[in-house]
Amino acid sequence: MSDLPKFVHIMEVGPRDGLQIEPRLVATADKIRLIDALAAAGVTEIEAGSFVNPRAVPQMADSEDVFRGIPRREGVDYRALWLNAKGLERAIANGAVDVEGKLTLTASETFIRRNTNRSIDDTFAEMPQWIARYRAAGVPVTRLGLMAAFGCNFEGYIPEAWVLDLVARAVAVMEENGCRLQDLNLADTMGWANPAQVKRLVGAVRERWPGLTIKLHLHDTRGQAVANAVAAMEMGVAHFDASVGGLGGCPFAGHKGAAGNVCTEDLVFSCTEMGIDTGIDIDAMVEAARLAEDLVGHELPGKVMKGGTLTRFKAG
Amino acid sequence: MSDLPKFVHIMEVGPRDGLQIEPRLVATADKIRLIDALAAAGVTEIEAGSFVNPRAVPQMADSEDVFRGIPRREGVDYRALWLNAKGLERAIANGAVDVEGKLTLTASETFIRRNTNRSIDDTFAEMPQWIARYRAAGVPVTRLGLMAAFGCNFEGYIPEAWVLDLVARAVAVMEENGCRLQDLNLADTMGWANPAQVKRLVGAVRERWPGLTIKLHLHDTRGQAVANAVAAMEMGVAHFDASVGGLGGCPFAGHKGAAGNVCTEDLVFSCTEMGIDTGIDIDAMVEAARLAEDLVGHELPGKVMKGGTLTRFKAG
Repeated sequence: MSDLPKFVHIMEVGPRDGLQIEPRLVATADKIRLIDALAAAGVTEIEAGSFVNPRAVPQMADSEDVFRGIPRREGVDYRALWLNAKGLERAIANGAVDVEGKLTLTASETFIRRNTNRSIDDTFAEMPQWIARYRAAGVPVTRLGLMAAFGCNFEGYIPEAWVLDLVARAVAVMEENGCRLQDLNLADTMGWANPAQVKRLVGAVRERWPGLTIKLHLHDTRGQAVANAVAAMEMGVAHFDASVGGLGGCPFAGHKGAAGNVCTEDLVFSCTEMGIDTGIDIDAMVEAARLAEDLVGHELPGKVMKGGTLTRFKAG
Repeated sequence: MSDLPKFVHIMEVGPRDGLQIEPRLVATADKIRLIDALAAAGVTEIEAGSFVNPRAVPQMADSEDVFRGIPRREGVDYRALWLNAKGLERAIANGAVDVEGKLTLTASETFIRRNTNRSIDDTFAEMPQWIARYRAAGVPVTRLGLMAAFGCNFEGYIPEAWVLDLVARAVAVMEENGCRLQDLNLADTMGWANPAQVKRLVGAVRERWPGLTIKLHLHDTRGQAVANAVAAMEMGVAHFDASVGGLGGCPFAGHKGAAGNVCTEDLVFSCTEMGIDTGIDIDAMVEAARLAEDLVGHELPGKVMKGGTLTRFKAG
């Protein structure tokens, strides 16, 4: 366990990745209340909404107002999702979004076509335009998100060599266009990953690009998310997306049984108990999970919110 | 990951540890149906019932009939729980129980008193009588189960040195009474363990008693059970208790939020995906979990039963 990081950074994605699939529309003021509860608990990066087609994702139709309404806390980045140029424009125009220069790719040809109506090659071909758009807004492009990096419900297991090839292509395109990949987010979008696979892929990426910050986005569809995160931490990975209460699923994967991201407070619990700082107060995080449960109106899968933290035993 | 075992043995505890806390009494024939579905899926050790006070645990009042009714499959051990001499007598008299010679201890003084009305010292003092009882039945005593080996809701964290002391005392008592500890089951009865702690404790026990078979009984109260099992497997641990669908809780711990054992099919999924054989068919196991859900009449926490296995992608 010698490679366990001293600090783990968690990006909370519940208010976006989680709420977007809830049948109940959560009121703007309630979203803001949840986002601020998360920030108050010590979360320093929160995906607070998305600038996508409001007809396709009505749950996010109020993102403009959510961002404008957040009582901003210093040191907290309020992130958004966008899928096209118009979305990025809206995010930039909003003024309250902490816009990051990120490119997005999917390791599965079938899934990227279903999801974006583009092939993998098309997506690479559009990267220079994306980089130019960000540049015009004064935002350096440093990030790549790779969806379905472990497996895909349409294509099966994703080979490591294929993932490395895709990252290499992205690194090359970024270099040709005057920017440099610094953060790679490997997303287990459909919950295929197992701990051994996580260690292998992280190890292979690290060996080839030692300077890269590896981030993981792990869905708990098959109950492996915490185990996968711990496996990654044992490889030194210190950046995770996570979802309060385990909110979420994957609306585009054609999969009713899909689960949300690794539950934030369950992951914070792992870290806290293993002596890894997250900057997040586990008890305040559990309160935020209870609030999320109230807002969506049904039980969330998080465990620590039911089993309880161990904080009171630490004081004694 | 080089120490991952090639084969992991799972003892299914759902029909006992799980069903005993369900408010709905499951009919004897249905219990037998579940037990046989588990055996048909490839589970070779099943805790099928308990010989305890039927007034205290009415859910297990029919254990005599359950054992007698099981269509026995070759190579499967049908286990039972007993807490006193009378229970052991009933198990032996039943004839269908695969009686194993096991001693039970709890690492928490408060918990063992609440649970058994005896102190830790009392429990050690009674061990020679237990060994004599087993001997009278021709059963060698080789096993020790140590409950609350990681933490206790009444006493807090359980120090490793204390666990080692207790095991050493048990080893000595067993030797003095002509038997030898071969299997040590470390139970995280109240779901306190974290992956780093599991690795430390397993490492410390293994260093001191290299010949011992270490088994783990992991509750998922705080969402760490699969991660803890994987951490143990990375230390070479190859024996786990697990509960179909994640059935269960801990009725004696005074803790409403307690969760059941690590979910059998989620653990089998981990193993299968990491190339570790369990002898258990993951798809048949999921069917058994669905049956368990039907019998208890409410949703179970298992994830793979909702997210689906990946078997169909392996064939292609």
